[in-house]
Amino acid sequence: MSKVLIVGTIGLDTIETPFGKKPEIIGGSAVHAAVAASFFAQPAIVGVAGTDFPEEHLTFLRSRGIDTSGINILAGETFRWSGFYEYDMNQAHTRDTRLNLYATFDPQIPETLRATAYVFLANLDPDLQLKVLDQLKGPKLVAMDTMDFWIKNKREVLHKVIKKVDVVLMNDGEARQFMETPNLPLAANRLLELGTKLVIIKKGEHGALLFSRDNHFAAPSYPQDQLRDPTGAGDSFAGGFIGYLAKSYDLSEQNIRRAVIVGSVMASFNVEDFSLNRLKQLKHKEIVERFAAFRRFTEFAAI
Amino acid sequence: MSKVLIVGTIGLDTIETPFGKKPEIIGGSAVHAAVAASFFAQPAIVGVAGTDFPEEHLTFLRSRGIDTSGINILAGETFRWSGFYEYDMNQAHTRDTRLNLYATFDPQIPETLRATAYVFLANLDPDLQLKVLDQLKGPKLVAMDTMDFWIKNKREVLHKVIKKVDVVLMNDGEARQFMETPNLPLAANRLLELGTKLVIIKKGEHGALLFSRDNHFAAPSYPQDQLRDPTGAGDSFAGGFIGYLAKSYDLSEQNIRRAVIVGSVMASFNVEDFSLNRLKQLKHKEIVERFAAFRRFTEFAAI
Repeated sequence: MSKVLIVGTIGLDTIETPFGKKPEIIGGSAVHAAVAASFFAQPAIVGVAGTDFPEEHLTFLRSRGIDTSGINILAGETFRWSGFYEYDMNQAHTRDTRLNLYATFDPQIPETLRATAYVFLANLDPDLQLKVLDQLKGPKLVAMDTMDFWIKNKREVLHKVIKKVDVVLMNDGEARQFMETPNLPLAANRLLELGTKLVIIKKGEHGALLFSRDNHFAAPSYPQDQLRDPTGAGDSFAGGFIGYLAKSYDLSEQNIRRAVIVGSVMASFNVEDFSLNRLKQLKHKEIVERFAAFRRFTEFAAI
Repeated sequence: MSKVLIVGTIGLDTIETPFGKKPEIIGGSAVHAAVAASFFAQPAIVGVAGTDFPEEHLTFLRSRGIDTSGINILAGETFRWSGFYEYDMNQAHTRDTRLNLYATFDPQIPETLRATAYVFLANLDPDLQLKVLDQLKGPKLVAMDTMDFWIKNKREVLHKVIKKVDVVLMNDGEARQFMETPNLPLAANRLLELGTKLVIIKKGEHGALLFSRDNHFAAPSYPQDQLRDPTGAGDSFAGGFIGYLAKSYDLSEQNIRRAVIVGSVMASFNVEDFSLNRLKQLKHKEIVERFAAFRRFTEFAAI
């Protein structure tokens, strides 16, 4: 099975949505991405957790075939995020972010994982993303994500990361903020000019856009009326995207488009319940069926 | 050539965008819709204008094959809208709306137009939309649009209109506001429950969604980096949509999807310049080419 290296946070989330409040549930960018990717490839997580991170969560990750040898368990507290969503669940509101062990995180990629062909740098300090990039040995494809905090505070380091990766994933607000234009196609073109080969703009309920120098692809979102907790949707998208690419080992435009839809499918399942509860129950058959539904509700004939 | 009856405003707009300020340019919901529809069918406008409405605008409408016999020219002033768009052109800001002759408008559909098969009730007081509906003789398809003002002030009359039409067009903000949910698929389902057969939710830069009881279709928007003036985009969409349906005389799901894309194509041209300037120059070949582009940037293969 193809491997995917995923570097990012492992966390405990406290989340409130109109559907309830859940304290201390398993979360983090690397965790959501890895679980989504595990339906297609073998993800390996590099990150750090404290001794307070419940063993059952690690057991669950391993049950999904995820390589946890790169997860350092250290004395101290696990990364924590607390947030809420109001009536309009498109917008996450942060109550509290505690970096804890991530405040001093120094990513060391285990020797056995340095030559992994497919790599996802989930949202993390771009200085740390650069450190990871320096340790990689000839990856076939590296994708990265980021967030508004780094755009505001480490713009120039982000430029350096973007120059070195193949795929940049951002949400629409971040792309507009970073490239200083409200126009998404323009923002995407500016990102491409920074040196990356592909830009994926995630728009939540409005789907996702893929831009390369010669091509554009627009993916819709699933018409989701079962939205219960959007946390981790972007990471599930990224995990599905890179997991599918690693599995199929095909970087044609055609296949990258399929991977964008697979990412959209995984995100659409992720939001149907809190934390990873929906993905824990998910069957491969359901993924295939939902992918087919995406085809049905997007196709139209020539005039 | 198939006829399309369009009832709505005929106006003079004063518009400011980051690309300039244009005073007293031709506008109005019926005008934008009719010009877009005129590329496919013969629209007839029913509305009212004042003696201050420049004759050259009427000449232009007739040059597009538009039947202007239902436009009443009365002593008094033409409808005027003044607005601006900031840096983020997704949001129109109204400076001033002067109903003028529309304050006392009583739509009388000329006898010769009452049996028109395809009808678009552009944004107008829903009481007047009901009056128009009462005068129609066995239309094949009636579509309607509305705006936040009527949702706030004439909710119950709107319910009556929606019950009587085949297609409801709304933008995403209006659909959420009217159906009191931030979830668009849910809002669309509630609109369908009110009695209409099709719901089209226009999302501007995020495309459009089509909902019927059994089907869902997601259309992207054109990746527009030439956005100069979004005014009338929704009306151009509606005009292209109903004009194409009138031309093809085919109300299959397949063809309605095509019509949604045609609407998206017409809206994408409309926003490339102020007022109707882009549509004035538009060639049928460009429409066909852009439709083909929509197919190219949305297609993906099965897994």
